[in-house]
Amino acid sequence: MKIDSVDFFYLSMPEITLEGDGSQDALLVRVAAGGHVGWGECEASPLVSIAAAVCPRSHGACQPVLDSVLGQALDGTADIARIARLVRRNSLDLLQTAHTLSGIEIALWDLLGKHRSEPVYRLLGTRSASPKTPYASVLFGDTAAETLAKAKGIRAKGFRAAKFGWGPYGQGSVEDDRDQAMAAREGLGPDGILLIDAGAIWIDDLAAARRRVASVEAAGALWLEEPFVSGALDEYKALAQLMSKARLAAGEGSHDTFMARHLIDHGGVGFIQIDTGRIGGIGPAKEIADYAAQRGVTYVNHTFTSHLALNASIQPYAGLAEHRICEYPAEPKAVAYALTKNHLLPGEDGLVRLPEAPGLGMEIDPEAIRRYGVDVEIRAKGETLYRTPRLGP
Amino acid sequence: MKIDSVDFFYLSMPEITLEGDGSQDALLVRVAAGGHVGWGECEASPLVSIAAAVCPRSHGACQPVLDSVLGQALDGTADIARIARLVRRNSLDLLQTAHTLSGIEIALWDLLGKHRSEPVYRLLGTRSASPKTPYASVLFGDTAAETLAKAKGIRAKGFRAAKFGWGPYGQGSVEDDRDQAMAAREGLGPDGILLIDAGAIWIDDLAAARRRVASVEAAGALWLEEPFVSGALDEYKALAQLMSKARLAAGEGSHDTFMARHLIDHGGVGFIQIDTGRIGGIGPAKEIADYAAQRGVTYVNHTFTSHLALNASIQPYAGLAEHRICEYPAEPKAVAYALTKNHLLPGEDGLVRLPEAPGLGMEIDPEAIRRYGVDVEIRAKGETLYRTPRLGP
Repeated sequence: MKIDSVDFFYLSMPEITLEGDGSQDALLVRVAAGGHVGWGECEASPLVSIAAAVCPRSHGACQPVLDSVLGQALDGTADIARIARLVRRNSLDLLQTAHTLSGIEIALWDLLGKHRSEPVYRLLGTRSASPKTPYASVLFGDTAAETLAKAKGIRAKGFRAAKFGWGPYGQGSVEDDRDQAMAAREGLGPDGILLIDAGAIWIDDLAAARRRVASVEAAGALWLEEPFVSGALDEYKALAQLMSKARLAAGEGSHDTFMARHLIDHGGVGFIQIDTGRIGGIGPAKEIADYAAQRGVTYVNHTFTSHLALNASIQPYAGLAEHRICEYPAEPKAVAYALTKNHLLPGEDGLVRLPEAPGLGMEIDPEAIRRYGVDVEIRAKGETLYRTPRLGP
Repeated sequence: MKIDSVDFFYLSMPEITLEGDGSQDALLVRVAAGGHVGWGECEASPLVSIAAAVCPRSHGACQPVLDSVLGQALDGTADIARIARLVRRNSLDLLQTAHTLSGIEIALWDLLGKHRSEPVYRLLGTRSASPKTPYASVLFGDTAAETLAKAKGIRAKGFRAAKFGWGPYGQGSVEDDRDQAMAAREGLGPDGILLIDAGAIWIDDLAAARRRVASVEAAGALWLEEPFVSGALDEYKALAQLMSKARLAAGEGSHDTFMARHLIDHGGVGFIQIDTGRIGGIGPAKEIADYAAQRGVTYVNHTFTSHLALNASIQPYAGLAEHRICEYPAEPKAVAYALTKNHLLPGEDGLVRLPEAPGLGMEIDPEAIRRYGVDVEIRAKGETLYRTPRLGP
């Protein structure tokens, strides 16, 4: 097959708030080849990722991403890796490249799976997909009382595990943060799995993070996530050595496999969290899943958007039955939920399973694209480089 | 002062080739505050960096860069650092952020220097700016014979040092690469300073890089630059240990101080090369210059564009007299040379000196902006987010 077209659809809620809630917009990617269509999703700023796809060339190592994708042969999984290498090489100096590539790469897996009538995880060499324990991923309440109520609500919905993050956490006093952590624990109950996400709030301030370790451990959290930005390896390492019961979790900011490996090898994390919509797609995520498993680090998906992204983020570690926990966007905005017709709903046993259908097995809802679609036009050098495509026949 | 406006000007040659020549286009940034104007330049894809400045917000940690800049107070150097932190925080999930921020940050230093009637290097705490030995930075010829002629020409122009990179290097046989390296050495003469730049061609293939070490050292090169992509720390470290005379140089891809520090601490490089147009501007570059000096690693600028960028890239290590070598774009395309009225030309002693004028001391040529300016328009959600600004009165 030859890649005939790559189209981007920018979807958005009518209003975007300043919450740390990544489900407020989405960038869908549609790839067509050999009469098949595959869908993927890029994490983070849709407009910028579109620009990286279509921008005028700056030089040989700073070409628009699409120049290395359109017209390429796609006859097997090795082609996906080859195209990804080509993109990274030809767009080396274009910083946004990895985010744009991610959605395209996911769509290529979906397309190839449909062509072969096989689920993506099987193309990855995974014989059967293990079920995952979803944790409800939500923002901290503005107050500890609000967090308590949220935690109770999550438990009432049937989730055993929950992650609280962002919101006021880390921005007030040590006591405020302790109250928030203890409220989350109280609401989840003593047997709930509690995860705490600092949202990189302390950047690389080891002292600020250290002051929260006692309350994170007192609340019985399984992990403290992203005390620092992804690059602060030395600070991760130092903090990891100060923790006795809880472990560190990080990695969502990884935009290549090197960054994720460094967090494992030099940062001392116990959980490595990969967003397939950022790291370059499913292939590099699978590489990290295998790498983590070999080193006794637990792989976890990072997903705060749609069920298309959720699905793509589970494929890479579907074969790791003991890496059981899975981030599950529990309060997504309407756009994120609406963009697929089917969803990965927890079964009666509370576990989430990948569909057995070909490709990713998700059905995109054209109605959602019409309803939440954003009109975009980018013109440069006298040409229209991008205009929101028609959804097609 | 309050930051009143930030404007982007995208300049380009009429034709952009596939050479690895970063001087074919440029993104100028003009910042106005308190009746002063400062100029900076972002490296790499202009359209994408503009998009990152003006894109619609995705969520609280994925805001357009300008939302954290416009209206901010600018009364001292601490404000520049504060604004940079704010941008990094509020645009954490927007991958292109660092490149957009870089040009803005440089413009803020220029503006503050003009306001205080002080050169930027003095605002950085450097008492006097040491002169630098420029190395002519050029691409390898298509053949060894062409490289020989280039090297002779460079020597004839008065340069004692030269870097050859990209072109066919690393893509053919080990013998081809040896012939290229030896031709460069022959052309420069036995006392010339020879530098070789592999342009990340081997990605993370240690074996491919290892096969070139003997010829790099036989040619008497001072360094082998970027055998791998910036993240391949383990491969850098392993290769560094295999080299006896030459050292490794890398770092141009650093888009934060962490990446540069990791190359020093975990990658074993002997030279750390920083592009102020990518790492976030002059402040973080200065941080790395000081860090390198403390660890016995030599700091070098990375510059392949205009003399505005060249100037901004020398400021951070102007105080390190022993870190003497300096990348100097010897064959820039017309747009890169034209955009400033004044240039950092080598003196009679062959050395390059920073101007003593306030700020960066460079004068932008409005005529170049008119001549090479690219018309851009970005529309989304029914609004015009960006249109090439008028140059002003």
